[in-house]
Amino acid sequence: MATETELFAGIPKIPYVPDAGARDVLCFKHYSAEEVLLGRKMEDWLRFSVCYWHSFCGTGADPFGFQTLHRPWNEGATPMECAKKRLHAAFEFFTKLGVKYYTFHDRDMSPEGSTLEESNRNLDEMTDLALQLQIRTGVKVLWVTCNLFAHSRYMNGAATNPDCHVLAFAGAQVKKGLDVAKKLGAENFVFWGGREGFYSIHNTDVAAELKHMANFFKMVVKYKEKIGLKCQFLIEPKPKEPCKHQYDYDAMSVIGFLKHYELDSHFKLNIEPNHTTLAGHSYEHDVVMASVFGMLGSVDSNTGSPDLGWDTDQFPMDIRNTTMIMKTVIEQGGLQPGGLNFDAKVRRESTDLEDLFIAHIGAMDAFARGLRNAVRIIEEGVVTSMVKERYMSFSHGIGQKVEDGSASLEELEDFVKQNGEPKVTSGKQEKYETVFNHYL
Amino acid sequence: MATETELFAGIPKIPYVPDAGARDVLCFKHYSAEEVLLGRKMEDWLRFSVCYWHSFCGTGADPFGFQTLHRPWNEGATPMECAKKRLHAAFEFFTKLGVKYYTFHDRDMSPEGSTLEESNRNLDEMTDLALQLQIRTGVKVLWVTCNLFAHSRYMNGAATNPDCHVLAFAGAQVKKGLDVAKKLGAENFVFWGGREGFYSIHNTDVAAELKHMANFFKMVVKYKEKIGLKCQFLIEPKPKEPCKHQYDYDAMSVIGFLKHYELDSHFKLNIEPNHTTLAGHSYEHDVVMASVFGMLGSVDSNTGSPDLGWDTDQFPMDIRNTTMIMKTVIEQGGLQPGGLNFDAKVRRESTDLEDLFIAHIGAMDAFARGLRNAVRIIEEGVVTSMVKERYMSFSHGIGQKVEDGSASLEELEDFVKQNGEPKVTSGKQEKYETVFNHYL
Amino acid sequence: MATETELFAGIPKIPYVPDAGARDVLCFKHYSAEEVLLGRKMEDWLRFSVCYWHSFCGTGADPFGFQTLHRPWNEGATPMECAKKRLHAAFEFFTKLGVKYYTFHDRDMSPEGSTLEESNRNLDEMTDLALQLQIRTGVKVLWVTCNLFAHSRYMNGAATNPDCHVLAFAGAQVKKGLDVAKKLGAENFVFWGGREGFYSIHNTDVAAELKHMANFFKMVVKYKEKIGLKCQFLIEPKPKEPCKHQYDYDAMSVIGFLKHYELDSHFKLNIEPNHTTLAGHSYEHDVVMASVFGMLGSVDSNTGSPDLGWDTDQFPMDIRNTTMIMKTVIEQGGLQPGGLNFDAKVRRESTDLEDLFIAHIGAMDAFARGLRNAVRIIEEGVVTSMVKERYMSFSHGIGQKVEDGSASLEELEDFVKQNGEPKVTSGKQEKYETVFNHYL
Amino acid sequence: MATETELFAGIPKIPYVPDAGARDVLCFKHYSAEEVLLGRKMEDWLRFSVCYWHSFCGTGADPFGFQTLHRPWNEGATPMECAKKRLHAAFEFFTKLGVKYYTFHDRDMSPEGSTLEESNRNLDEMTDLALQLQIRTGVKVLWVTCNLFAHSRYMNGAATNPDCHVLAFAGAQVKKGLDVAKKLGAENFVFWGGREGFYSIHNTDVAAELKHMANFFKMVVKYKEKIGLKCQFLIEPKPKEPCKHQYDYDAMSVIGFLKHYELDSHFKLNIEPNHTTLAGHSYEHDVVMASVFGMLGSVDSNTGSPDLGWDTDQFPMDIRNTTMIMKTVIEQGGLQPGGLNFDAKVRRESTDLEDLFIAHIGAMDAFARGLRNAVRIIEEGVVTSMVKERYMSFSHGIGQKVEDGSASLEELEDFVKQNGEPKVTSGKQEKYETVFNHYL
Repeated sequence: MATETELFAGIPKIPYVPDAGARDVLCFKHYSAEEVLLGRKMEDWLRFSVCYWHSFCGTGADPFGFQTLHRPWNEGATPMECAKKRLHAAFEFFTKLGVKYYTFHDRDMSPEGSTLEESNRNLDEMTDLALQLQIRTGVKVLWVTCNLFAHSRYMNGAATNPDCHVLAFAGAQVKKGLDVAKKLGAENFVFWGGREGFYSIHNTDVAAELKHMANFFKMVVKYKEKIGLKCQFLIEPKPKEPCKHQYDYDAMSVIGFLKHYELDSHFKLNIEPNHTTLAGHSYEHDVVMASVFGMLGSVDSNTGSPDLGWDTDQFPMDIRNTTMIMKTVIEQGGLQPGGLNFDAKVRRESTDLEDLFIAHIGAMDAFARGLRNAVRIIEEGVVTSMVKERYMSFSHGIGQKVEDGSASLEELEDFVKQNGEPKVTSGKQEKYETVFNHYL
Repeated sequence: MATETELFAGIPKIPYVPDAGARDVLCFKHYSAEEVLLGRKMEDWLRFSVCYWHSFCGTGADPFGFQTLHRPWNEGATPMECAKKRLHAAFEFFTKLGVKYYTFHDRDMSPEGSTLEESNRNLDEMTDLALQLQIRTGVKVLWVTCNLFAHSRYMNGAATNPDCHVLAFAGAQVKKGLDVAKKLGAENFVFWGGREGFYSIHNTDVAAELKHMANFFKMVVKYKEKIGLKCQFLIEPKPKEPCKHQYDYDAMSVIGFLKHYELDSHFKLNIEPNHTTLAGHSYEHDVVMASVFGMLGSVDSNTGSPDLGWDTDQFPMDIRNTTMIMKTVIEQGGLQPGGLNFDAKVRRESTDLEDLFIAHIGAMDAFARGLRNAVRIIEEGVVTSMVKERYMSFSHGIGQKVEDGSASLEELEDFVKQNGEPKVTSGKQEKYETVFNHYL
Repeated sequence: MATETELFAGIPKIPYVPDAGARDVLCFKHYSAEEVLLGRKMEDWLRFSVCYWHSFCGTGADPFGFQTLHRPWNEGATPMECAKKRLHAAFEFFTKLGVKYYTFHDRDMSPEGSTLEESNRNLDEMTDLALQLQIRTGVKVLWVTCNLFAHSRYMNGAATNPDCHVLAFAGAQVKKGLDVAKKLGAENFVFWGGREGFYSIHNTDVAAELKHMANFFKMVVKYKEKIGLKCQFLIEPKPKEPCKHQYDYDAMSVIGFLKHYELDSHFKLNIEPNHTTLAGHSYEHDVVMASVFGMLGSVDSNTGSPDLGWDTDQFPMDIRNTTMIMKTVIEQGGLQPGGLNFDAKVRRESTDLEDLFIAHIGAMDAFARGLRNAVRIIEEGVVTSMVKERYMSFSHGIGQKVEDGSASLEELEDFVKQNGEPKVTSGKQEKYETVFNHYL
Repeated sequence: MATETELFAGIPKIPYVPDAGARDVLCFKHYSAEEVLLGRKMEDWLRFSVCYWHSFCGTGADPFGFQTLHRPWNEGATPMECAKKRLHAAFEFFTKLGVKYYTFHDRDMSPEGSTLEESNRNLDEMTDLALQLQIRTGVKVLWVTCNLFAHSRYMNGAATNPDCHVLAFAGAQVKKGLDVAKKLGAENFVFWGGREGFYSIHNTDVAAELKHMANFFKMVVKYKEKIGLKCQFLIEPKPKEPCKHQYDYDAMSVIGFLKHYELDSHFKLNIEPNHTTLAGHSYEHDVVMASVFGMLGSVDSNTGSPDLGWDTDQFPMDIRNTTMIMKTVIEQGGLQPGGLNFDAKVRRESTDLEDLFIAHIGAMDAFARGLRNAVRIIEEGVVTSMVKERYMSFSHGIGQKVEDGSASLEELEDFVKQNGEPKVTSGKQEKYETVFNHYL
């Protein structure tokens, strides 16, 4: 079988060559899987995952242009034949790249049939093959998700569709997805509600839709428990696109929703920075916020351009950003069972097969640099101690009472009457920025 | 006393003259306070409020220019003399305009002293006068708020300041603010956390700051209960400005925060559409979302320009927007004890004293038109029945089970196996838009 | 042949029924083609045009979902058979709607072949039929354009492609497009440089690309003159999407480019408001700016949502916006030979065939209301005289010298030395807004 | 005199200590003024300039808060006494920092009087002192500009004011500004039209205002020639803020304006990246575009936050950005007589006097790193040769004819008929990004 799937024939397993020059873009210069930092291997801090849809199903079509990416694995007599060829190619790629995880939608891996039953049969056949390839290669599923947005039936939403028949279809599809997650040992299961929102407020009953979405999630939780599926559930926020407004706007919106419907113990968040910036936040914002609320489950490591108003799903290349993400990840003790999933696609103009490698290598190196920087920041402790000192007043006296919740307004007033005006303390933002730059 | 405060001498009480021509901008053409719509007077649906800070304290200074607005009520020998003259002028204005409510910050009404004690004494003296003027004119306080952002001590935050001494000062100030609210019979009390957020993530301990903010609110709730203050607490979301990131980003962020810290039964939201649009939402979005979650307490009726990235606090003039707001307000049964507060300022180039009247009249008429439109939409029921029909599948069968939370994934799958693919149903957005236009 | 093309069988010619109720969305309530306003028929002020690509070629696919719109005119045995059926359907639609113009790309009307020669033969055959249908119905071509962005060959640009072979292909295609424009009597010819820009500054030689684009336009001008084509050339600005940056960013960018390369006498602009708002301007901005510079040729009458960062090409429904556009159009004496082209698509969820009518009717009525409003504003002259009065100082004395360019800094200084500080004059923005609202 | 101005007493001249650790933020780690790169000293490539208004006149006030920065040089008995103390402090700062240039507005350096004559006298007295300090220290004026936006008389614009009296005042002020520029040997003169635009389209005659602005510039050019002033004129684009729309929106808008009014030979552009990003472009965009059109005169080296919609004027700290700017600067042969002016302010929370040093040092080091990176990129030539290869087709055959403007559409068509479909060429964006990262 090896021969027929050797689609990246010219490309050997990617080595780590730390001193490679600028033009040598088919080796790692920073990412060294086995190297230990802060007591953990690089690959365990970074837990990279390749996404199946962009990298193996993407065609390069955009709203203004047709297919540009013609992949050899898509040449087959039937949809199922292509699907299998594609899966082989993907595992060849994972292996050569040295990535231990992949992620997929049910409908990426396996073609949708004309009935639910046919779709499920296709999925059974394909996941049999996937399981076999997982065992052979050691590559595992970081997360599975169900595609509840691409088929025309979902045009008005899935769990929030005004027609309960569509919601039922989504439920049936997710039921199968959960079975597949169990079968393949997925470590997480993601819900991205691409069409759970609205295009026009005029035709939408928001209250009804939110309740339906909550009830949908409750059924999902019940079924997960029933089948003994152990993976972590994750919701992936996005503010808009394709919808005008998506209910899972950003980390805090999802946290508010989950808490309102008492679902918060069953879900964490999968944060995609390109979605975060579309919601008007800075790159690292939702990773930080989710982490602070104990809800950071996984990260879709990609990037957009701050001057563009749509999701471009570019490979993350900015060391400043990767440093900020890895600092947060280290501070919360790692992402496991989550990881860093490359929900990123090569540009539609990047038509060479090698571009798929170059893009992943460039991004993995960008994260490896980010990790190394974050480790140095944490190990040297300069920033940490500057911050600790800044909040020191909460460790004693009236500050401690505020901290532990035992103070009252009357006590605060008494404190001010005794101590008068607070002294001025510089925030020293430029000093922090300058020190931070030292580590980049 | 009447003579000395007659600062709007040339302007009589604003009449309602429905057929006034285009140039006549000193009368109402649409707002008729006593007219009854859907069983309630216009003034009870609209509950307009004038904001003290923009309309009576504003100077027209902006980050690139000095004062342009030179108000006669600011000419006085001492700050307290000015403050009193200003308050008289304001009540003259409220009365001539025919608005029954006003809103203010503690520091608008009364100059800050060099100590907390002096500030409190000033506030006592000023609120004695305010109470007197309220009784004389029948004008009431829609809400009070404490200014916890303008003084330099708050530059790094109030309840989220890294220095607990500053937090204590904020607590002392709010304690007095609550006393004032009780004294003046304020129907609501607003918290706008203008500096509760960060300018740089590098120097900020987000987890600590959020906890301090929650503990601060808990003290405030306790003191409110202690003094028997009956008003509604409101939090006003804003995404950014002056901060780079404000914790109360938008309605859902605040709801998430309140639920996480179990504060949600004590607070509702005061939504400002200019803040909503800065958070990347449509004009009416947060009003709708807050209402859906049962958290809409009041509205700061203003507008921004969608092409500008900062808060311009313009008077709301777009009938489409006012119609959407009033439709939501009617559907939730009104805003009481909240209202429509004109958190809006005349442009700094609008230097004539009459511009203050023209702006309020134009905005009140815009809301009166919005109310009339919304009433017609609701009374005729065309849109309502279109929406109802759209969600009809949830009123019976499997839909009803989803609605009441008794369905399971297995049942949904069975339903699909029996009923196959859902039928295609047009969302008919353009029809909704066309019908909506009919009412504008 | 009439029978076989009767695809909108249930829908008769759209009547004008000014007092139709809210639910009756299949008649005009405001647009009355023959009615005369300011000495010109409504249809001559409005010069509506249906766009072929969205309304007849659109499938409803978006970056996250598959086709939703299954049109009967796309069911045929061969691409050419479909193309002809589609064209018949389109003319049936134009006629029933009562619109006199249409616009199209070469590749919408006629399928691309495997060679340039085959594509050209297809286009010849299809335009023969188009000409026949134009003569039979009286419907005319507002403008033609060449699709230089959808085929994968154009992925890196057409006139700005780094490979001159692609530029040559674009040139050959435009040559044929100009021949077609002449054959069909197109009144304008549009260039939209969707891929003339860059995705990454790193791989781009901006100076070279701009020069190539200019030289390309010079060849186009020469060929137009050679064949005696009389139509107006138009460039359509767009800031981004699909590119990260498009050279024709907005009206002023194009004007700068045209003047730099001395092409400005040969081109005007086709302004699309959805592109204008994506460039950070207000809805009417580029229409106004192009008009002021004598460069407003035509308008793509659509709209986006200000909270979305991509081109949604919605039907324009906001009366405020249509009023602003029509006021500018009237002030420049009309758009002829340009028009109001509905570069707008029904939402992908608007799957009923009637939605295509409803959307156009709603938008035509929105423009008819805008026209009526603008006519009233201009006829009553209130706003005009307020503005005239505001600039009166330029009609005499030192102002007149500034106006005619004969003043000097020395004279300005002398004037100030004699006259001192200028008096304060209110900008009265709220008054203007209130008066403007009177006409909506 | 030295003693009385020693306001930064604790801070010695900033040394270059390349191996200083993270906490040592009062020395340069990368900027070494005398070091030669590509045949030029670092200080000649970088030509840093300190801006007077932010760094010496800034108070820390923002639209939501009062003064936070209390500078010792602002403590004086009279405005003129303060002004002198401030100027001494500034020259002490320039000298200790080792920066050779400064920039200022007329009204920063010298207080506005109650008449033009008094203002001019103040300016004469202050510039006498400035000249003395320039001679003593060797620090020079990079550029002067007139503040035509802060005084209330300019609220409706200066050269575009509807009242010609205001325009006359602006003209008189600029006349004096040009005299001052000559006196102090300014190398450039900047025009930033902060209020040249509009707040409301309703009250604005755009055509008239643009013409007045052009005529104003023509007078300015004439006076410059008359007095034999040799400096470069620069226009600084900004899209909005304080205006809703500023006519000098971005580089291309200004180029379009200048060419339309035949002013382009007299002006270049001063590009501020924080303005560029507010116009919806990427950080380096306008620097690149201005350079390509031969119009890049100078750079206001600052930054904003991409998630904020207003001008924050932060110190530039992102090495990626500084590398892109310096690459463009080197490619056009340097910025002289322009430079890199720190139009940046310490955050209002950065209240320590040393923060002013830290901010400048951090930014200068960021630019020094950018310069070193850009030099390596250019010297190694990897990127350059990749780009050159990409456009190679224009160096021969049909490509060369396109390049030199001698090709025709007919020839392009012939070429395609002979050569068929172009081959697919990957844009290789990820490769470029990965290679670029190698140099950061």
